[in-house]
Amino acid sequence: MFNAFYQRILNSKLQGLIHSLPALLDAWYKDALHGEFHQWQKTLKNLPDAQPSVLELKDKVAFGSADDINQGQQKRLIALLKNFMPWRKGPYELLGVDLNTEWRSDWKWDRLLPHISELKDRTILDVGCGNGYHMWRMLGEGADIVVGADPSQLFLAQFQAIHKYNPSPDIHLLPLGIEQLPKSEAFDTVFSMGVLYHRRSPLDFLAQLKDQLRNGGELVLETIVIDGDQNQVLVPGERYAKMRNVWFIPSCDALVHWLHRVGFSNVKVVDKCVTSLDEQRKTEWMENESLVDFLDPADPTKTIEGYPAPQRAVIIATK
Amino acid sequence: MFNAFYQRILNSKLQGLIHSLPALLDAWYKDALHGEFHQWQKTLKNLPDAQPSVLELKDKVAFGSADDINQGQQKRLIALLKNFMPWRKGPYELLGVDLNTEWRSDWKWDRLLPHISELKDRTILDVGCGNGYHMWRMLGEGADIVVGADPSQLFLAQFQAIHKYNPSPDIHLLPLGIEQLPKSEAFDTVFSMGVLYHRRSPLDFLAQLKDQLRNGGELVLETIVIDGDQNQVLVPGERYAKMRNVWFIPSCDALVHWLHRVGFSNVKVVDKCVTSLDEQRKTEWMENESLVDFLDPADPTKTIEGYPAPQRAVIIATK
Amino acid sequence: MFNAFYQRILNSKLQGLIHSLPALLDAWYKDALHGEFHQWQKTLKNLPDAQPSVLELKDKVAFGSADDINQGQQKRLIALLKNFMPWRKGPYELLGVDLNTEWRSDWKWDRLLPHISELKDRTILDVGCGNGYHMWRMLGEGADIVVGADPSQLFLAQFQAIHKYNPSPDIHLLPLGIEQLPKSEAFDTVFSMGVLYHRRSPLDFLAQLKDQLRNGGELVLETIVIDGDQNQVLVPGERYAKMRNVWFIPSCDALVHWLHRVGFSNVKVVDKCVTSLDEQRKTEWMENESLVDFLDPADPTKTIEGYPAPQRAVIIATK
Amino acid sequence: MFNAFYQRILNSKLQGLIHSLPALLDAWYKDALHGEFHQWQKTLKNLPDAQPSVLELKDKVAFGSADDINQGQQKRLIALLKNFMPWRKGPYELLGVDLNTEWRSDWKWDRLLPHISELKDRTILDVGCGNGYHMWRMLGEGADIVVGADPSQLFLAQFQAIHKYNPSPDIHLLPLGIEQLPKSEAFDTVFSMGVLYHRRSPLDFLAQLKDQLRNGGELVLETIVIDGDQNQVLVPGERYAKMRNVWFIPSCDALVHWLHRVGFSNVKVVDKCVTSLDEQRKTEWMENESLVDFLDPADPTKTIEGYPAPQRAVIIATK
Repeated sequence: MFNAFYQRILNSKLQGLIHSLPALLDAWYKDALHGEFHQWQKTLKNLPDAQPSVLELKDKVAFGSADDINQGQQKRLIALLKNFMPWRKGPYELLGVDLNTEWRSDWKWDRLLPHISELKDRTILDVGCGNGYHMWRMLGEGADIVVGADPSQLFLAQFQAIHKYNPSPDIHLLPLGIEQLPKSEAFDTVFSMGVLYHRRSPLDFLAQLKDQLRNGGELVLETIVIDGDQNQVLVPGERYAKMRNVWFIPSCDALVHWLHRVGFSNVKVVDKCVTSLDEQRKTEWMENESLVDFLDPADPTKTIEGYPAPQRAVIIATK
Repeated sequence: MFNAFYQRILNSKLQGLIHSLPALLDAWYKDALHGEFHQWQKTLKNLPDAQPSVLELKDKVAFGSADDINQGQQKRLIALLKNFMPWRKGPYELLGVDLNTEWRSDWKWDRLLPHISELKDRTILDVGCGNGYHMWRMLGEGADIVVGADPSQLFLAQFQAIHKYNPSPDIHLLPLGIEQLPKSEAFDTVFSMGVLYHRRSPLDFLAQLKDQLRNGGELVLETIVIDGDQNQVLVPGERYAKMRNVWFIPSCDALVHWLHRVGFSNVKVVDKCVTSLDEQRKTEWMENESLVDFLDPADPTKTIEGYPAPQRAVIIATK
Repeated sequence: MFNAFYQRILNSKLQGLIHSLPALLDAWYKDALHGEFHQWQKTLKNLPDAQPSVLELKDKVAFGSADDINQGQQKRLIALLKNFMPWRKGPYELLGVDLNTEWRSDWKWDRLLPHISELKDRTILDVGCGNGYHMWRMLGEGADIVVGADPSQLFLAQFQAIHKYNPSPDIHLLPLGIEQLPKSEAFDTVFSMGVLYHRRSPLDFLAQLKDQLRNGGELVLETIVIDGDQNQVLVPGERYAKMRNVWFIPSCDALVHWLHRVGFSNVKVVDKCVTSLDEQRKTEWMENESLVDFLDPADPTKTIEGYPAPQRAVIIATK
Repeated sequence: MFNAFYQRILNSKLQGLIHSLPALLDAWYKDALHGEFHQWQKTLKNLPDAQPSVLELKDKVAFGSADDINQGQQKRLIALLKNFMPWRKGPYELLGVDLNTEWRSDWKWDRLLPHISELKDRTILDVGCGNGYHMWRMLGEGADIVVGADPSQLFLAQFQAIHKYNPSPDIHLLPLGIEQLPKSEAFDTVFSMGVLYHRRSPLDFLAQLKDQLRNGGELVLETIVIDGDQNQVLVPGERYAKMRNVWFIPSCDALVHWLHRVGFSNVKVVDKCVTSLDEQRKTEWMENESLVDFLDPADPTKTIEGYPAPQRAVIIATK
């Protein structure tokens, strides 16, 4: 199912990946056949066909309008898309359907875009891309090719649903973790947003990101941070904001130092802000608990476990 | 250097090969860089550029005429092609140069063509393809895609020299032995001419050929045979017709039985003839010993070692 | 379960096998746990304990007498041993039980013993050892260590049952095929009896046997042969004497030549005889069809399929 | 060269390691043959033979006295041992030779011994064991078997030199890093002293140590720490006390928390002290720079780079 990807990279700076990725993705695929993914593929086949009258990527991700399908089709579209809940990253507009996701990922995009190198004609990797929302925005900025990596099968299915209505050959989501990606040293920009704190070895992770960049390429890293000096690093207990699997939350100074230590230069914190309850919240497309439930009701500057509430920084660095 | 091949197969019945061949060919390539092959690639770069006025494949393999290049270029062409001696399979006409090879491979082609299934639109594998002479003839018959496999680096360089003057995207030579090819079960026709007697395990070889055919596909097998009944099999000593590495020379009946035994049906011997001294002989493009030197001067029905002189049969079978 | 084997080889010429066999055998063991083998291990645990009063290996394989256990125990012994039916190679006497197997393997032993190099103090491999009957006889001749290889789990269980009553540290059966054994070049004598005709590639098989011998070591090869000159090789159809999976039955001359061809010297046929109906027959320990059922009732010189009846040769060769 | 180790573990709780270690160590050995190690093996062969009159392990590591060899032999012993300089961990007394190493490793031992579980009859792993000094002390406490792991070839050669004069079958040094050791879950006690700060991923390292312990087993961890609360973690720049490759120096509270986080219990800091200039210093057996050179001459509470001077803690934890 990745033939279009292989074809696309053979004519790009990523052609070296043809030596290793097909074997990896084939192994993934044979394994995925046994799981829920197989069922999701059938659901995808039932999505109504449509020719979106408009494809917007620059200011939002909006494909088509309600006029492009009839009412019955739209009902079916909504019903089928709900099969892929929870929808976390977005929002999307799809043939008039307002896919209102847990996150206002567009706000994060607006905060970081002014600070990063222009994306026009760049070869881009998004590590931990989720369902691919920011990948579409990268395409909207004129990227040559955008590759996302995220091991979640659900996010791949969500991406496929969106991609059906804008089947661009320049955007591809690979269901792999970064530790599985062969060292390419080929990307102009590597994004990684919301991943670092999930890694038991943050320095290995930063080195892996560096291995994907060409010399002179740019890293755009977003993660949760705490306040404090270069020696301040929070390793929470079993849970942080109800999340399992959170390991290292450094201060900005610590993170900047770590980036230098693994060999990046021009390291700059370009944004830092506390996530608001408007940016991450429950919607009809994500009905589980959200940020408000993760914070201490008595003191929203703390998580329910008593740690500092999530504060997110964006850091830019050059290889 | 095999990107064109990868691109071609992604749009063909061979697309499954993308999961395994790039890794194999990349390993081959890294290894080949250390040998003579590297030098040959430089030689290939010096071949004169030319736009052949005519591309003939149907009755002979002839690209361009003497008028397509100037005399100096032709001299250079000849000198450079001689770097790739010995030239065994042919003949080729290249921009007016008569590349007169050791073998009149066209004669073998003329003998077998009337007996095999029409090649038009077929996906074809030629195992032990040498420099690819017969592959061009297959293309001349309208094959959709022709893949050759031969581990010799020299033959690949020869093929590349010829291919420069007819850079068809539908013909590809892979420097691999059949035991390295993943089981594809995808080819419509598999040729193997002049290989079986070099295999220490002829039945494993026949099974490997079968593994490359789709159900209902056709095998075209050519090899040396002896006279005799189904139990007659010659295993020569260290050398047969001065060749080392000759293992099993069965009778036609034995070979037909072997093909049935590994699961082929419709097995038919369609041609059998003693190789003549006109068909295989020394030329200015192959100055080593040839057939006349391999036979007993006193009795040309025997090899110099006293075995029956080479007699070749063509057998057709269906998977 | 192979720790005793590892311990034994660490003090022998086979110590190099410690680098590869434990991983292979561990993989085998994990796999075997899922099958019948697991059940057989429980059966083995129930075999009555006994101290055999005598251990005979020289003229027959006989451990203990009826006096070494009580009648109830003997009944249990018989009942449990029948769980491992069919018993093919033997005969064994076990605590007074006459384990009368399909084959009089002792007759074969008596025919070949006078012709082979003395086994005293030798390191021996028996490829295709079955339940290990001949291995005990090798031990009886004073071998230093005897290793058998046979992938059948049933044969291993039978061997374990016998070994319980003579737990010699010098005899070990590995449930592996020869193609899995690492090239050791360490054995003084390699036996392979009744295997070659089951190999699709007899020459690769002979080369594998050679890879197990030290320089100067001796091969003892027994297989089915046909009459005829050096070019006579029978490849039967789907079945030979009702056996599936029979591939090459050469004449003695052909086999001698093959052995020379893969590099053996001093190749000698030391015995050749037609298997008699007394040597291979149904017993109470092997109730399936036996030789009499495999032959043409009207003409016992032919198999039921019309091929020459089994004639077996023993060939000795030196590496 | 590890056959004695294989033999020893086959009769121990470590027998499962036989499935993987021989292949690893064989690969190591083939590789080591190309390096200096080969030369060191020759040097080891030239060490004078001697029968030490006394073997002391309980209060110090002392094998034999000057009376056990003649003066010429002692001179040779000293000259040959100097081939293995620098000697870091010790001290040793060897046939009257005072092998005065950079470290007074005995002082560290004396500090931690009162706090750990009795070592009698335990199966012990020492990760980052150096030349094995503490391993001898563990043996002195009655350990059943002591296995050290350290990838340095020099340390292995030093260990072999010492072991020559006390060839106990119960002590073995493997030239492997912990990340190469298969998960054994078999050791009663795992020591790791002076390693954690060299790991780019300290939490993965702690998890690897846990993988070597049986349930209920004890970890004895010694590393450099800084002062501060649970969020204090120093990641130095390129160098710390002139050492490259120092990554994480946590506070004791942080380290205790990390140990809990990866699943240890009963975590206790049992010793913490600043390394004195008497404990680590240049000697005639280690002529390179030592601690005094690593500290700020004007302020010995700081390293030459301005970081807190090394302070070492010992932590005990239960799996």
